[in-house]
Amino acid sequence: MIYSKISGTGAFIPSIKKENQDFLNEDFLNDDGTPFSSENDVIIEKFKGITGIEERRYAKPEHTSSDLAYFAAQKAIENAQINPEELDYIILAHNFGDVRTGSIQSDILPSLATRVKHRLKIENPNCVAYDILFGCPGWIEGVIQAQAFIKAGIAKKCLVIGAETLSRVVDKHDRDSMIYSDGAGACIVEATSEKDTGILSHASQTWTKEEAYFLFYGKSFDTSKKNDTRYIKMYGRKIYEFAITNVPKAMKTALDKSGVAIDEVKKIFIHQANEKMDEAIIKRFYRLYKKPVPEGIMPMSIYKLGNSSVATVPTLLDLVLKEKIENQEVHKGEVILLASVGAGMNINAIVYRY
Amino acid sequence: MIYSKISGTGAFIPSIKKENQDFLNEDFLNDDGTPFSSENDVIIEKFKGITGIEERRYAKPEHTSSDLAYFAAQKAIENAQINPEELDYIILAHNFGDVRTGSIQSDILPSLATRVKHRLKIENPNCVAYDILFGCPGWIEGVIQAQAFIKAGIAKKCLVIGAETLSRVVDKHDRDSMIYSDGAGACIVEATSEKDTGILSHASQTWTKEEAYFLFYGKSFDTSKKNDTRYIKMYGRKIYEFAITNVPKAMKTALDKSGVAIDEVKKIFIHQANEKMDEAIIKRFYRLYKKPVPEGIMPMSIYKLGNSSVATVPTLLDLVLKEKIENQEVHKGEVILLASVGAGMNINAIVYRY
Repeated sequence: MIYSKISGTGAFIPSIKKENQDFLNEDFLNDDGTPFSSENDVIIEKFKGITGIEERRYAKPEHTSSDLAYFAAQKAIENAQINPEELDYIILAHNFGDVRTGSIQSDILPSLATRVKHRLKIENPNCVAYDILFGCPGWIEGVIQAQAFIKAGIAKKCLVIGAETLSRVVDKHDRDSMIYSDGAGACIVEATSEKDTGILSHASQTWTKEEAYFLFYGKSFDTSKKNDTRYIKMYGRKIYEFAITNVPKAMKTALDKSGVAIDEVKKIFIHQANEKMDEAIIKRFYRLYKKPVPEGIMPMSIYKLGNSSVATVPTLLDLVLKEKIENQEVHKGEVILLASVGAGMNINAIVYRY
Repeated sequence: MIYSKISGTGAFIPSIKKENQDFLNEDFLNDDGTPFSSENDVIIEKFKGITGIEERRYAKPEHTSSDLAYFAAQKAIENAQINPEELDYIILAHNFGDVRTGSIQSDILPSLATRVKHRLKIENPNCVAYDILFGCPGWIEGVIQAQAFIKAGIAKKCLVIGAETLSRVVDKHDRDSMIYSDGAGACIVEATSEKDTGILSHASQTWTKEEAYFLFYGKSFDTSKKNDTRYIKMYGRKIYEFAITNVPKAMKTALDKSGVAIDEVKKIFIHQANEKMDEAIIKRFYRLYKKPVPEGIMPMSIYKLGNSSVATVPTLLDLVLKEKIENQEVHKGEVILLASVGAGMNINAIVYRY
């Protein structure tokens, strides 16, 4: 049995802060193009109450997702103290490719992983670079794939990155635009001879019956616009119900598979989509074990960073491992859970002994 | 040692034929926007001489890549006689997502694999559906990933699809637009207890030093257009040199790893990019073993189908296995090679015992 461990992490948090009050002058509309009955300050206050988001980060105009990915990758490589020429894989998760400022086209040729490898100046052609599209859980899925390659004997060291610039695909007339942000997180997944360490188990799911188009690329709420431009769109209520029902079960599947007792779990790193939703998921997860939610089990970054899709979990992990979130630490030997949910609808979870 | 075999294949060849003469009235330009000195009939004749392409297929206006993928997937499932609910993975390779007719936006939310799973009406949430971006070699890479999941013990049956509608991303002012076509191919990769059968070995590479942007998303050759719309673009000459130098070596790496003798190889299914290039690759491959190229070793479909990116290899494999190409057959126990090269620049090869 070969185990896989995360030997280094890195994150890139863009410097441009966009605060809630910056949305005060937006012209928010209902999905049928009619105006909202309430004022923007009321909408924003309600938004903050549900999502927890006070501010979010946007990439500089000259940066695209692959730039953010590169910055995070550099840090992860440095943190893991590896020679990048030894990498067997570069796996990059995103959902919209490189969208340049002012453009509506997703640029995914070549793959973003190729762009990152190019900028890292890795010469080894046997370092295979590819992108995966798997909604917000893409980064966790990349880690699962890296682990599979290690188990299959075709890799020893993999760089897994999640990068996104959602600020480039939002409909300004949609309140949900306030949720989305930009960012990148990365890690090195390495084969280890240490037993019972690193990734202990995982669960992955894709729900496509009713759920396939809960998140989709749709038209602006401004129905007066005659063009066909598409933006990130979601049925928030449906996603909420779906997530609080199915994510706790998938987390339990992964935990039970690992054989680790619920009380051994010290931290849960969950996709930063919505504070209330994340709290409800954790509550239901513990309820499956008839336990109360332990104090401080769930570090959060959504208040200041918003929802940067694939980037939230690796960024959060990096922040906690580097002790940049108050009262949040992970110690050697402790078990942590990583979990995510998003477009697909995809769900995944990893049980990990640090 | 668990082996992985292809238990079924399927292809979807769009019905719209676009012949070389259909390009007679195009306004072809040089990359600096200046007109060509030669007439279109001369350009087309020269094009045919190099690429071998006489006609190519375009998808119906109402279809997107995920539709083509679905049609091919249905056939592969039927051919393999499996219950789709037993699938552990749906892996879909493409490079531009769903591009609707008349749109310049790539729609990749949700993933195309999710769309296919939705249309296949698969209910099992543990069937994980994701997309990979890996240039033209994406479908072969998907097969390699499926095999890795099988070896790692996390999958038994995987559906791997390659689908593309390149006709939606071409610059009409670029002669290279005549190369590209639409299509989809798929297969089922299954764990097998038979020894020394199915996938025997593989090689995968990503070259990103000089090569990262040999294929890219670039502006129209019509420099009078002031918009920023991007199209598929390539440096054909550089790709040609790169491919004939490196693809034979990667094929040799894979073959030598398998322990199979060169004389045992009965067919080579190579990405249909360019007839002359494919012939040069095969010639150099055999030269590495100091052997002449065996008669009929390389079935070709490019004459009638053009270059449909990720779809060429699975489509060609399907055509030959179903004996739809004259004098081309594969028999039980025979060794075949699959090989591809494309954007990334990525190269891969699989040695397979049928």
